[in-house]
Amino acid sequence: MTYRDAGVDIASKEAMLAGAAGLVRTTFRDGVLNAGGEFGGLFRLGGYRDPVLVSSIDGVGTKTQVASLLGRWDTIGVDIVAHGANDVLCHGASPLFMLDYIAAAALRADVVTSILAGIASGCRAQGIALLGGETAEMPGVYARRQVDVAGCTVGVVERDRLMTGRTVRAGDAVVGLASDGLHTNGYSLARAALLPRDAAAARRALERTPDELPESLGDALLRPHRCYVRPVMALRDHIEIHAIAHVTGGGIPGNLLRTLPGGCRASVVRGRWPVPPLFGMIQAHGRVADDEMFATFNMGLGVLLVMPRAHAEDAVARLGRAGERAWVVGEIVPGARGVEVRG
Amino acid sequence: MTYRDAGVDIASKEAMLAGAAGLVRTTFRDGVLNAGGEFGGLFRLGGYRDPVLVSSIDGVGTKTQVASLLGRWDTIGVDIVAHGANDVLCHGASPLFMLDYIAAAALRADVVTSILAGIASGCRAQGIALLGGETAEMPGVYARRQVDVAGCTVGVVERDRLMTGRTVRAGDAVVGLASDGLHTNGYSLARAALLPRDAAAARRALERTPDELPESLGDALLRPHRCYVRPVMALRDHIEIHAIAHVTGGGIPGNLLRTLPGGCRASVVRGRWPVPPLFGMIQAHGRVADDEMFATFNMGLGVLLVMPRAHAEDAVARLGRAGERAWVVGEIVPGARGVEVRG
Repeated sequence: MTYRDAGVDIASKEAMLAGAAGLVRTTFRDGVLNAGGEFGGLFRLGGYRDPVLVSSIDGVGTKTQVASLLGRWDTIGVDIVAHGANDVLCHGASPLFMLDYIAAAALRADVVTSILAGIASGCRAQGIALLGGETAEMPGVYARRQVDVAGCTVGVVERDRLMTGRTVRAGDAVVGLASDGLHTNGYSLARAALLPRDAAAARRALERTPDELPESLGDALLRPHRCYVRPVMALRDHIEIHAIAHVTGGGIPGNLLRTLPGGCRASVVRGRWPVPPLFGMIQAHGRVADDEMFATFNMGLGVLLVMPRAHAEDAVARLGRAGERAWVVGEIVPGARGVEVRG
Repeated sequence: MTYRDAGVDIASKEAMLAGAAGLVRTTFRDGVLNAGGEFGGLFRLGGYRDPVLVSSIDGVGTKTQVASLLGRWDTIGVDIVAHGANDVLCHGASPLFMLDYIAAAALRADVVTSILAGIASGCRAQGIALLGGETAEMPGVYARRQVDVAGCTVGVVERDRLMTGRTVRAGDAVVGLASDGLHTNGYSLARAALLPRDAAAARRALERTPDELPESLGDALLRPHRCYVRPVMALRDHIEIHAIAHVTGGGIPGNLLRTLPGGCRASVVRGRWPVPPLFGMIQAHGRVADDEMFATFNMGLGVLLVMPRAHAEDAVARLGRAGERAWVVGEIVPGARGVEVRG
C-alpha cells in the first residue's frame, strides 16, 4: 500500500506546488526575505517606531460551491485576499503578507493553480506578499469536488495610528461604500434561495441572465470581494475616521455594532443607498424577511466608515474621485449601544 | 426562508463563540492589545532591533477523522499549535501568536469548545496568544461529522539570529528528537492500513489495545504533536545549531533536504534511534514499502537538528536533561544535494 493508494499524492502535489512557486514570487515585495522551500515565510519588519501587528483569518465560505458548479476557480483567490485585507484595514493597518489554506478530498492541479493565480493577482493588486500556504488533501473529510479556501492576513500600523473604535461619538456620520455583490457572506442562503438542488439544473440557472441582472447569475454570484484598503487609507490622510466596519457575517447591524462604545447607537436609514437587484432576487425567491436579509448580507455596502458629521460630504466626494461609490447612510446617536436599520 | 434553514445558524455560533471567549483570554500574553470582538487580532511588537516575522499555516490533516470516530476532540487543538510552533522554530523564531480556522458542514458547540480548549491549552503551554479565529459552517462542502482544523502561527526572531540552513556544512551531525506518535502526518495511509472501512468496526479497532502497543490504538493515534520550541531554544543558548528541520509531510528525507545547501548530502542511519512499534504495525498491516514509510511518516523523530559534530553528544545530553529523548542519527557529507536513509 502507498500514500497515493490512500488518496494522498505527494509527488503530484509537489509538482503542482513547484508550478505555483512562480505565481507566488510575483507577489513578493519589500520585506520578503525568502524565496520558497522554507518551513515558514520570512518578513523583515523595518522602519516602525512602535508597530502593532493586526491579523485576521477568514474563509470564503460556500462561495466555493458556486465556483465548483461552474468549474471557474479564478476569482475565489481574489475574494480571500480582499476579505483579510479589509479586516486588517478596520484597525487602520496596511496588510503586509498573507498565507493561504486550500483543502479538498483530492486536489486537482488545474483547480489549485487557478485558485493560486487569483490569490496572487489579488495580492499584487494590493501590494500584499503571499508568504506561505498549505494545500491539504483530506479524503473523506470533504465532499466530492468541493474545495475550501481560507487565508490569514497580517498587517501593521503604528500604535498611535491604531483604530479601535473608541473615538466614535454621538453626532458622527456613517458613510457606506458600495460592495461588489455578496462578497463572501450569505452564500448558503443565496444558493438555497436561487439555485435548484440538482447540480445540472443549478448550473443552467447560473448560466442564465435573469431579467433583474445585467449579467449571468453565475457572474453576479462570483463577483470578487471588493478591497477597500487603498481608497480608505488615502482618505485617512485627509479626513479623521473614527471607526471602520467591514460588512461580513452579521451584515450591517452585526458589524457596525463592533465599532460602538457604550452609550452610542447607530441609526442606518434605508433608501440612502441603492440596494443592488441581486439582493432583491434572493429575498423574493427565498421569501426572506427584511431583518434576515440585513443580518445575513451586506445589502450593497461593503465597508462602513464612522467619522465626524462635518467631514462626511467631503469624504463621499473624495471617495467618488477615487472610484468608490459612497453615501452618508446613517448617524451615531446617544442611546443604548446597538444598531437600528430603519426607513 | 432563513440563514438557519439554509444550514447556517449565526445565533448558535455567536453563543458558542461567547462561551469560547473565556478560553481564548487564558492565552493572552505580553503584547496582546485587544480583548475580543475586533475585526483583527492586535499584537504590539516591542523591543526588537531588527525583527523578522516568521509565519506558517498548517492543518492537522485527517487526524480529525480519528477524533471524529472516537468523538474525542480535546487533543486536535494541541496538534495544530505544536505544528505551527515547530515550523516557526525551524528559523530560530519564537512563536508569538496564532489564529485558528475550524470548519465543518455543521458545527456542534461541544466539538468546537473541545477543539478550542485544546488550542488554548497548547497555546498556554507554549506562551502563544490565540489572537483570532474563524469558525465556518459550510453545508455541502464537508462530509457529515467531519471537521477541518487549521491554524496560522506568527513568530519573531532578530535578523542576526535568523536560521536559514545556509551554515550547514559537510562534517555536521544530525541530531534527532523523539516524536510522540504520528504527529499530524500520514493519517490517510495509517487509517487505510489499520482501520476497517466500516465506522463501527473502525471504532472497535481504535478502542482495542493491540499486542504491539502499551495503549489503545485510538490513544496512540490521537497522541498530540510534540512541541520542541522550549528545549530547542534553550539548547541554542549553549550550542551552535546550523539548521532545524520539522519532520512533517515528506518525512525525514523530504524535510531534512530543505535545510541543505548545494554540495551537502545528509546520510541518516537506521538503527541509531528506536522506531516506535506503531510504525511497524502500519507497515505490516498495510504492506507498505520501507521508502514509502520514510517518505510519509516521521518514523519516531519529530525534529532534526544539524550542528557541528563536536557538539552533538553534548546536545544529546542537554536535551536529555530537558526531558527530550535524542540521538545522533546521521551526518552531513560532501556530495550531490540529497538525503539518504541507509542501514
